[in-house]
Amino acid sequence: MLTAAQLDHAIAANWDRQVEWLKTLTGFPSQRGLEGPCQDWIAGSFRERGWSVDRYVLSDVAMAHLPGYSPVADTDYDKAVQVVASIRAPQPVGRSLILQGHVDVVPVGPSDMWSQQPYGGEIVDGKLFGRGACDMKSGVSAMVFALDALRTAGYLPGSDVYVQTVTEEESTGNGALSTLARGYRADACFIPEPTGLHIGRGQIGVMWFRLSVKGMPAHVAESEQGTNAILSTYRLIEALQQFTRDLNERVKSHPWYSGLASPIKFNPGKIRGGDWASSTPAWCELDCRIAVLPGTPLDAFRQEILDVVMTAAAADPFLAPNPPEVIWNGFQADDYVLEPGSAFEAAVRAAHQAATGEEAKDWLFTGVTDSRFYGRYYDIPSLCYGPSGQRMHGFDEYVELDSVKQTTRVIADFIQRWCGLRAI
Amino acid sequence: MLTAAQLDHAIAANWDRQVEWLKTLTGFPSQRGLEGPCQDWIAGSFRERGWSVDRYVLSDVAMAHLPGYSPVADTDYDKAVQVVASIRAPQPVGRSLILQGHVDVVPVGPSDMWSQQPYGGEIVDGKLFGRGACDMKSGVSAMVFALDALRTAGYLPGSDVYVQTVTEEESTGNGALSTLARGYRADACFIPEPTGLHIGRGQIGVMWFRLSVKGMPAHVAESEQGTNAILSTYRLIEALQQFTRDLNERVKSHPWYSGLASPIKFNPGKIRGGDWASSTPAWCELDCRIAVLPGTPLDAFRQEILDVVMTAAAADPFLAPNPPEVIWNGFQADDYVLEPGSAFEAAVRAAHQAATGEEAKDWLFTGVTDSRFYGRYYDIPSLCYGPSGQRMHGFDEYVELDSVKQTTRVIADFIQRWCGLRAI
Repeated sequence: MLTAAQLDHAIAANWDRQVEWLKTLTGFPSQRGLEGPCQDWIAGSFRERGWSVDRYVLSDVAMAHLPGYSPVADTDYDKAVQVVASIRAPQPVGRSLILQGHVDVVPVGPSDMWSQQPYGGEIVDGKLFGRGACDMKSGVSAMVFALDALRTAGYLPGSDVYVQTVTEEESTGNGALSTLARGYRADACFIPEPTGLHIGRGQIGVMWFRLSVKGMPAHVAESEQGTNAILSTYRLIEALQQFTRDLNERVKSHPWYSGLASPIKFNPGKIRGGDWASSTPAWCELDCRIAVLPGTPLDAFRQEILDVVMTAAAADPFLAPNPPEVIWNGFQADDYVLEPGSAFEAAVRAAHQAATGEEAKDWLFTGVTDSRFYGRYYDIPSLCYGPSGQRMHGFDEYVELDSVKQTTRVIADFIQRWCGLRAI
Repeated sequence: MLTAAQLDHAIAANWDRQVEWLKTLTGFPSQRGLEGPCQDWIAGSFRERGWSVDRYVLSDVAMAHLPGYSPVADTDYDKAVQVVASIRAPQPVGRSLILQGHVDVVPVGPSDMWSQQPYGGEIVDGKLFGRGACDMKSGVSAMVFALDALRTAGYLPGSDVYVQTVTEEESTGNGALSTLARGYRADACFIPEPTGLHIGRGQIGVMWFRLSVKGMPAHVAESEQGTNAILSTYRLIEALQQFTRDLNERVKSHPWYSGLASPIKFNPGKIRGGDWASSTPAWCELDCRIAVLPGTPLDAFRQEILDVVMTAAAADPFLAPNPPEVIWNGFQADDYVLEPGSAFEAAVRAAHQAATGEEAKDWLFTGVTDSRFYGRYYDIPSLCYGPSGQRMHGFDEYVELDSVKQTTRVIADFIQRWCGLRAI
């Protein structure tokens, strides 16, 4: 076992390089469909470390039949590059490990609402700014440089380690699923999502859907003859808001989520409708995200949403004759909780305790992460633990660099506790 | 004076050619920005008739200083082609005339909601289908072939006639305004908008504006930290709907519009907002159309709208710190009514009576036409009179061909009554 001083020294020795690496990584505008160049650069960086790299695209992987698969629309999976680096131990001495992080980022929104360049990676007062700087390129840098720290100290992991950088975490999770479809397995999966140095034990389920609403357009001078698709869409939003309030009542009996205030969030996130100010809009499309009530099978939850939408439509004179379509075009994600008591969690907690002198706190996430795939469908215990930052999915997202260093230290220590070490 | 039989005979002689001409005209997809080829074809068709053609674009004409001008955004006036044909009488015997029609059309909307090709010009059971077939390429064909009928009968108008085909009628009216800025004047302006063979005596004012609403995005998992621009926009819609109800109360004391049920229409016509289902939307833009309360100066009405929007924003915890923008980006149109009793109207009524044996009925339009420019700002009496059809701005727009023939007959007869005739 490396001592605390040895670990700190090794991490400090690589720190400037790590910050530079994170800054470069943040510079890639790896929004959906544009992750390729980012993954190419990462694959190169992994090869330079001597790791064996498997780089592939999602269209190469059959996975629509697997649990947790989410349907997609308007996305070219020929461009969805995934990277898995294998660091194999000839004679394993500990337990194997998947280190996983996603490199896809959500859109930046109007750039003029940022005070920093969205992909600039500027550092101000110990904060590194940029879309994805926190969620979760910071964590990716931590898992890579944790391994670098061990190497600097003269060691490799004592068991097989798979370092995975995936995409689609922000929309479907199909990147993570593809690594499992491709056959990668281990005794645990550690995901350095930005949990604020908490144990990310679990997460709620999430569903995406598109409401496609039609209208009967008319000249606005005779608008009583038409139906306005934009206004009809708002009626459906109101019904879904009421549904969300009901779900937050029902969740109060859940063993894990009862402790959170309103864990079920509904978000009308993107809207497009109509063509002309003076025509009654004939169409409106709304992309929505809603949390899944924990414990509800996805099929049953989809039916609940359909019932809410169709009941609202039936009660509306405009929508009844032209019912909306509900299109499932992204996340169809179950919730997942790692039950307490695993050896895996104990090892992470020990590493956190060693680094901070404090007991790690739990964190339940009202969003989604990739950990569900490993933990729920493949029986590979999985949790999230990573840096602190702010404004993920917002403007001026940033990560606190001190917390990135802390995370790197915890991961390095955890690896030696979980996988053991072998001298180079 | 040509007799009824002579007029009917001359119109019938050209009828097949007129229908073909209207079908060709309907085939041009002359939506905003794409009117050029349509106007080029019309200019050629006018030149073939021996008329003197003035073809120009709106960017050639200074008119921002003129009453009735509407500001524009995102539109290239280098492409906004206007056509004015002059048929000058060497020794005028009657009164001069402007015949005016617009060739711009509104968007077709989702093509799959049409049962006919939107620009196909199909004829079924005496109806010619297509975007613009009714509004108002049918009327354009009527004014052109009314002149052709006189020529077939051996006559030209006895006074100067200006045949104008303009654009921007559906968005600003700046096409009509440009002809006045360029100096064209006459003793009356006749616009064959599809009034269903009624005397289109007047019209309400119309205003376009864009609401630009910002939000503070957050990860939807923490959406209580953000503000949703799509939902905020809906709050503004509700305030404008209430404002519209109030206006319809206030209009009940108006001498002309008190007779109509709810003549003030508000239409949220086009919406765009947000980038990602799982991010709180940071922006939303809504293009709106509202009728102007008759008698209210445009400046005062704009202030009323601003007050409604800003009051709603101030009362909302999300909008108060980030007030929306209101952008005036289209119609800033006064209402206009041609008071009864003019010699012009009498001549139109006489032509209608001669063709139908009935007294023409009045029609007040709750939308807008170009007649306001001539009648309100340049003291040129103007009215609308034209064919019958359905679903202007909707799907499967059509015009009834019988009514086009009727309109052609009425215009031809009106010309000889107003302008006199001269033998070729």
